[in-house]
Amino acid sequence: MSNAPNQPLRMALIGGGGAGFIGKVHATAATLDRQAELVAGALSSNPDKSKAAAAAFGIAPDRAYGSYQELLDAESKLPADRRVNFVSIATPNFTHCDIACAAMEAGFHAVCDKPMTTNLDDAQRMLDTVETTGRVFALTHNYSGYPLMRQAREMIANGELGEIIAVRATYVQGWMHGMDPQAEQARGAWKSDPLKNGRAGSLGDVGTHAFHLASFVTGLHPEALLSNMQSYSRHHELDDYGHSLVRFDQGATGMITWSQMTHGRQNDLSIEVDGTKAALTWRQEEPNQMFVRALGQPTKIYERDPNSSYASPDAIAACRLPGGHPEAFFEAFANVYRNAFEDMRRVDAGESFDRSKSLYPSVADGVAGVRFMTRCLDSAAADSAWQKW
Amino acid sequence: MSNAPNQPLRMALIGGGGAGFIGKVHATAATLDRQAELVAGALSSNPDKSKAAAAAFGIAPDRAYGSYQELLDAESKLPADRRVNFVSIATPNFTHCDIACAAMEAGFHAVCDKPMTTNLDDAQRMLDTVETTGRVFALTHNYSGYPLMRQAREMIANGELGEIIAVRATYVQGWMHGMDPQAEQARGAWKSDPLKNGRAGSLGDVGTHAFHLASFVTGLHPEALLSNMQSYSRHHELDDYGHSLVRFDQGATGMITWSQMTHGRQNDLSIEVDGTKAALTWRQEEPNQMFVRALGQPTKIYERDPNSSYASPDAIAACRLPGGHPEAFFEAFANVYRNAFEDMRRVDAGESFDRSKSLYPSVADGVAGVRFMTRCLDSAAADSAWQKW
Amino acid sequence: MSNAPNQPLRMALIGGGGAGFIGKVHATAATLDRQAELVAGALSSNPDKSKAAAAAFGIAPDRAYGSYQELLDAESKLPADRRVNFVSIATPNFTHCDIACAAMEAGFHAVCDKPMTTNLDDAQRMLDTVETTGRVFALTHNYSGYPLMRQAREMIANGELGEIIAVRATYVQGWMHGMDPQAEQARGAWKSDPLKNGRAGSLGDVGTHAFHLASFVTGLHPEALLSNMQSYSRHHELDDYGHSLVRFDQGATGMITWSQMTHGRQNDLSIEVDGTKAALTWRQEEPNQMFVRALGQPTKIYERDPNSSYASPDAIAACRLPGGHPEAFFEAFANVYRNAFEDMRRVDAGESFDRSKSLYPSVADGVAGVRFMTRCLDSAAADSAWQKW
Amino acid sequence: MSNAPNQPLRMALIGGGGAGFIGKVHATAATLDRQAELVAGALSSNPDKSKAAAAAFGIAPDRAYGSYQELLDAESKLPADRRVNFVSIATPNFTHCDIACAAMEAGFHAVCDKPMTTNLDDAQRMLDTVETTGRVFALTHNYSGYPLMRQAREMIANGELGEIIAVRATYVQGWMHGMDPQAEQARGAWKSDPLKNGRAGSLGDVGTHAFHLASFVTGLHPEALLSNMQSYSRHHELDDYGHSLVRFDQGATGMITWSQMTHGRQNDLSIEVDGTKAALTWRQEEPNQMFVRALGQPTKIYERDPNSSYASPDAIAACRLPGGHPEAFFEAFANVYRNAFEDMRRVDAGESFDRSKSLYPSVADGVAGVRFMTRCLDSAAADSAWQKW
Ligand SMILES: NC(=O)c1ccc[n+]([C@@H]2O[C@H](COP(=O)([O-])OP(=O)(O)OC[C@H]3O[C@@H](n4cnc5c(N)ncnc54)[C@H](O)[C@@H]3O)[C@@H](O)[C@H]2O)c1
Ligand SMILES: NC(=O)c1ccc[n+]([C@@H]2O[C@H](COP(=O)([O-])OP(=O)(O)OC[C@H]3O[C@@H](n4cnc5c(N)ncnc54)[C@H](O)[C@@H]3O)[C@@H](O)[C@H]2O)c1
Ligand SMILES: NC(=O)c1ccc[n+]([C@@H]2O[C@H](COP(=O)([O-])OP(=O)(O)OC[C@H]3O[C@@H](n4cnc5c(N)ncnc54)[C@H](O)[C@@H]3O)[C@@H](O)[C@H]2O)c1
Ligand SMILES: NC(=O)c1ccc[n+]([C@@H]2O[C@H](COP(=O)([O-])OP(=O)(O)OC[C@H]3O[C@@H](n4cnc5c(N)ncnc54)[C@H](O)[C@@H]3O)[C@@H](O)[C@H]2O)c1
Repeated sequence: MSNAPNQPLRMALIGGGGAGFIGKVHATAATLDRQAELVAGALSSNPDKSKAAAAAFGIAPDRAYGSYQELLDAESKLPADRRVNFVSIATPNFTHCDIACAAMEAGFHAVCDKPMTTNLDDAQRMLDTVETTGRVFALTHNYSGYPLMRQAREMIANGELGEIIAVRATYVQGWMHGMDPQAEQARGAWKSDPLKNGRAGSLGDVGTHAFHLASFVTGLHPEALLSNMQSYSRHHELDDYGHSLVRFDQGATGMITWSQMTHGRQNDLSIEVDGTKAALTWRQEEPNQMFVRALGQPTKIYERDPNSSYASPDAIAACRLPGGHPEAFFEAFANVYRNAFEDMRRVDAGESFDRSKSLYPSVADGVAGVRFMTRCLDSAAADSAWQKW
Repeated sequence: MSNAPNQPLRMALIGGGGAGFIGKVHATAATLDRQAELVAGALSSNPDKSKAAAAAFGIAPDRAYGSYQELLDAESKLPADRRVNFVSIATPNFTHCDIACAAMEAGFHAVCDKPMTTNLDDAQRMLDTVETTGRVFALTHNYSGYPLMRQAREMIANGELGEIIAVRATYVQGWMHGMDPQAEQARGAWKSDPLKNGRAGSLGDVGTHAFHLASFVTGLHPEALLSNMQSYSRHHELDDYGHSLVRFDQGATGMITWSQMTHGRQNDLSIEVDGTKAALTWRQEEPNQMFVRALGQPTKIYERDPNSSYASPDAIAACRLPGGHPEAFFEAFANVYRNAFEDMRRVDAGESFDRSKSLYPSVADGVAGVRFMTRCLDSAAADSAWQKW
Repeated sequence: MSNAPNQPLRMALIGGGGAGFIGKVHATAATLDRQAELVAGALSSNPDKSKAAAAAFGIAPDRAYGSYQELLDAESKLPADRRVNFVSIATPNFTHCDIACAAMEAGFHAVCDKPMTTNLDDAQRMLDTVETTGRVFALTHNYSGYPLMRQAREMIANGELGEIIAVRATYVQGWMHGMDPQAEQARGAWKSDPLKNGRAGSLGDVGTHAFHLASFVTGLHPEALLSNMQSYSRHHELDDYGHSLVRFDQGATGMITWSQMTHGRQNDLSIEVDGTKAALTWRQEEPNQMFVRALGQPTKIYERDPNSSYASPDAIAACRLPGGHPEAFFEAFANVYRNAFEDMRRVDAGESFDRSKSLYPSVADGVAGVRFMTRCLDSAAADSAWQKW
Repeated sequence: MSNAPNQPLRMALIGGGGAGFIGKVHATAATLDRQAELVAGALSSNPDKSKAAAAAFGIAPDRAYGSYQELLDAESKLPADRRVNFVSIATPNFTHCDIACAAMEAGFHAVCDKPMTTNLDDAQRMLDTVETTGRVFALTHNYSGYPLMRQAREMIANGELGEIIAVRATYVQGWMHGMDPQAEQARGAWKSDPLKNGRAGSLGDVGTHAFHLASFVTGLHPEALLSNMQSYSRHHELDDYGHSLVRFDQGATGMITWSQMTHGRQNDLSIEVDGTKAALTWRQEEPNQMFVRALGQPTKIYERDPNSSYASPDAIAACRLPGGHPEAFFEAFANVYRNAFEDMRRVDAGESFDRSKSLYPSVADGVAGVRFMTRCLDSAAADSAWQKW
């Protein structure tokens, strides 16, 4: 699995065939900087569809596998300089644990989509596997890949906002209004099935992104939370609207809001952080600007601008273009990959790395996300009573 | 207290002298349409200051009184065509009940600032007095006076948003960061004193505005709520940051958020309403635009434009200028007055009016606001447990 | 015509009856601060309509006149402490000169709407009359009354933008698409008639506002200009769309753009100024914010906030409310009046004042506006050749 | 030069080594969809630097050439299934013509950056070469690759805006304030040298983009134009600020504005189109939204949303992600490539294609851009007199 420097890493994709949405994003994001090339895939749960889908991804027929097991098996047997370096997992939630653990046990690094898995037991198993195998594991909470979210994180870590007293992260979408509750669903049908999706509906789908972003940016840890959630759509039984009030360490208040029932909202993730010196706001749909406010001062618009006087090191490192040449979703997603690649190259070169310092979301972040879902569900079941973290 | 049609109503102002902020706004808003003239006042708790302040308001010395009691007394004795028609109360919260009740009992209509009072007993007393005296009582939750908030209310009442499933109203300010906890305070010192302000801090100051706006726009009634609030400033012991989760009738979820500790935010009241057919958002600091969204449709920006194809009757009636000629805070405040004047003229002409149909906030809205504060405080004291409304 | 300090000035209104738009604005703006009261009027060209309209303005029948001549005559004969102090002129363009000159000659101050008049001869006559009579004359280029436009002016005067190299002022509306070219017009019919409106169409109606704002803010003077304009509407023969390129002193480039044919634009006046140290932009429809930019720095949003660290003296003086409590069209209009009142009180008290330093638009600004229209028309007639100023 | 379907096209890059900016963008944009792979390059004018730069692009040493001539020579001799299919030219303006013509004559398709060249003679030579060789030639006026600009074009072509009466395209930047006129410049020094850059400064650099976008979106053709431009920076002698007034066919008025001296503006290209039925505006720095306005109707925000009810076919085809997942600069740039690839595959498969119907900017657009610069320079030299197109 060795790789010459500058030579692209070899990638295998699990999921993404047919109507699969995020698999295609992984393929584009991972290869955006020409630091990786997609050479193998098990693109569907159906072996025939899996192989048929490969051509559209530019995967050669001999590396289009019928299942992830077959893929891991066959790739393991290839010579080190042909075999894939890492596996990207873009399959339904309930499959992440098995696939990621199998991949890491077979010696491959893993990039896995969120939520990491559907329950705390599986989450623990994934954490253990990462520790045992020493593989790189990255979770695609891609929104933390935006340069200005990294700028926010650095500014807060440097004390530019003072002590953090509150954070409000809101993720609202409206597509569930378009679902026909009667119609049999093609893409994403598993999302309505608690066995496959997990018990968390929109909470898992978007709430965990908002929670992760709040944690990533502020560096705060929850001590307790309460939650209320509803299922307004007749589309399925899972939650599609909810709030969680979070008591963070150092006394900060968090409010995480999620909805997939807000008409006309597309992918509206936003975050507001209040500190004792300044406050900031950012919105994913206009990701190249962040607003920083302080009492009596002009509101400052920080642009994603690596050449500005104010850009912080991690923000600069996360930019590919000068200011005013907007970057967006793919680039943020690609930043998660780019950071993971650094660690992969370290490991492949026999070097060590500090997992707790990764800029990309780690297995620990994945465990936190599953814990967040679990505690929210517990609180909702207990009439919104506070739950210890 | 009779008045020829077209002749301005005569107004007395209580409070607003010296550094008093909102009293000056009452004076301007009430007279904006030249439907009222300010002729009398008891402008301060200090009799000398009270009289001294009158000139700046254009009040003649013989009607500059030393106290509200003196004012009510003297004005009552004036002939009906000179005596004031109504009294506007812009004094600290704990004084509203006594002043308003005395004024109504003396035969004057009352316009009172919010929160109506500090506790439910007083609130009940005010409601009783309104009913007994038959006077017009208007509460200046001025934000409901904005034309587009009336448009929103009508659209929702007409079913244009479908069933309402959720409402999020947020009122954030940051001025408390500018308070020196050591310094003795000139203006607004009573706001830190639970005896004068009531037990609710920012909850009463801005939270009640947000709650009222949510109720006004959606027409929903709370069934239960829970709350968490904090006192982050060392400025006083009262809350300065909080959330309340509200269970409205028909199952809608409400989230009311208030803060006076969000750096650089000035007067940032916003509202979002999610319905089964469409959703809308509006923000007080840019009050001439409202955004209406529906899945798959272009987002629509509704302007405050009385000549547009889409303006609703109450919105049109609330405009003084064509679209693009922005209206703002004073005009919205003046709309509360304008509507109250209609009822005052009815009562003064011996006609009846339906208090429950007033567009201006009524004594019932005032009771609801005090109940909202009380239930939030109860929940916060009970570890955020749900409280029946 | 004397007036005790603090006692309101007495105002007469010419025009504004019936459907007249801006007359009502004058009435509200002049009285907003209770520094003036509207006591007399000649509200229409038709004597009967003129008198009938008075009640709606709260003008007593004995001071509702049939014509402006009658008004000037009768008011002149009233005792000094009853007689009006000033006359506000809100009539068609071609009448401004006669009315204003007659009023000033009768000893009244004059507030006149724009464009000051339709040709340079009349403009000169008005200038002469102002000089001869010593009366206060204010022209309601109301957009220069916005606090942030005064802030911009002060910042530029203080060198905060460095040398000004360019200014772009754009005023676009779309209402002309709603005119039926066949229908006989009620309100504003004179606007299509070159004899009454002058030869400038939208150029006079909105172009002069843009030109004035550019001059007011930058302090620059034109040396030459060229222009192209079109008449796209079949509504009348006058221009409804145009550009003028202006060569200002010190080599700055100006671009003035006007349109009343831009669908869906309401009253979209905006200005951008480029300096060697910084640049700024502002837009009338969101008047409480101004954007200041400098290379490599965060864009700064200056709020209309008299309590901020950055508000300039004239901006502070032009505010009635704290930041976040938006002010808008009426307040800006009222600021022109407020400044003119200061000079009126000076003159009425026998003091002198420096006309060239007035913050409100002066007769000289009015002459400049007429010159701007004239030069634009000349250039357009000469195939867009440059015209000396 | 044949290529199996689905097999990536092979790309050679000229320029982009070292500090070269846009070459890196070409590399990323061309390969974004994994439809092309970068396999060869002549990355600098300096042979050693050229070869040294190859590794960073993932180009193998044996295909890192010392000059474009060497590249064309060597690649021509490779077997058809190894040889590059196309050459991307990201070098200084004055080199485009020679390189592009040589490449096409050697049988390669050419993608060339803008302005196409520096004078009309060269432009004609490029047009002739395209016609003679039958190669695909694409000019990277990348801003026309944005999905919403294609939506705008289709809406206008379909008559949704009615007849077009006016278009305003503005491209303002401020980076020139950061240039030290004394310092010897590393990157982009040729831009100050009229021999290498051409006589047009910012006019060529950004003005041509604005002009192209206006033409692309409206489908209008110029009949005449006048221009004024200035050189405010002491950085060089070329223009850095200018306006061009354009008379389009059918009587529409165009205003093209360019600046590289507007402090704090980064890459602010915007366009406004006025039609007799509706008007639209769009801004490159927030490319996922377009505003469509019509009198009396709510302003409509069209999102880049391939799943919306209103997305047009070309807009849908230009999207890679659902609405709310913002796309930006790279994707727009990649759309120019994607469309050119379709024609390249046609030509390589022996099929014909209609050059005049390409969605990507063609050689004819390149000629028009050079003509635009030339006519603007002519007008500026003739005291802004109108120039026939
Ligand atoms: N990071 C993000 O922003 C983001 C966005 C969307 C989805 N997601 C996550 O990505 C995952 C996939 O979501 P989606 O919306 O693309 O779902 P989807 O249903 O559209 O696609 C899932 C894909 O996985 C394939 N698949 C299922 N089981 C498989 C198996 N055993 N082996 C191989 N392939 C298999 C399916 O055939 C399909 O192609 C989920 O965990 C979801 O939460 C993340
Ligand atoms: N509607 C709104 O948006 C809004 C905004 C601000 C304040 N308020 C409300 O208005 C009220 C006043 O607030 P403020 O900020 O202007 O307070 P303030 O302390 O600035 O002013 C209070 C004024 O009342 C006077 N006063 C006190 N006791 C009096 C008495 N017995 N008789 C006569 N005058 C007396 C004081 O001298 C002072 O002039 C409060 O209830 C507050 O909640 C409402
Ligand atoms: N400052 C601004 O923003 C602004 C806005 C609109 C109009 N204006 C200007 O205000 C003036 C009036 O415009 P409008 O739109 O209100 O026009 P309008 O046609 O709506 O109203 C004109 C009014 O003047 C009255 N009038 C006409 N001749 C008169 C006379 N001899 N004596 C008394 N009254 C007479 C008419 O009856 C009518 O009430 C124009 O000069 C216009 O350019 C300025
Ligand atoms: N489409 C856009 O938005 C956009 C943006 C920037 C630049 N451009 C255009 O791209 C071109 C390059 O601009 P830039 O800003 O990248 O310039 P640059 O000076 O930064 O880079 C030019 C590159 O070309 C190389 N080069 C010069 N002569 C060469 C030769 N004969 N052979 C091989 N390489 C050679 C240089 O070594 C350098 O790497 C210009 O025509 C410019 O107008 C377009």
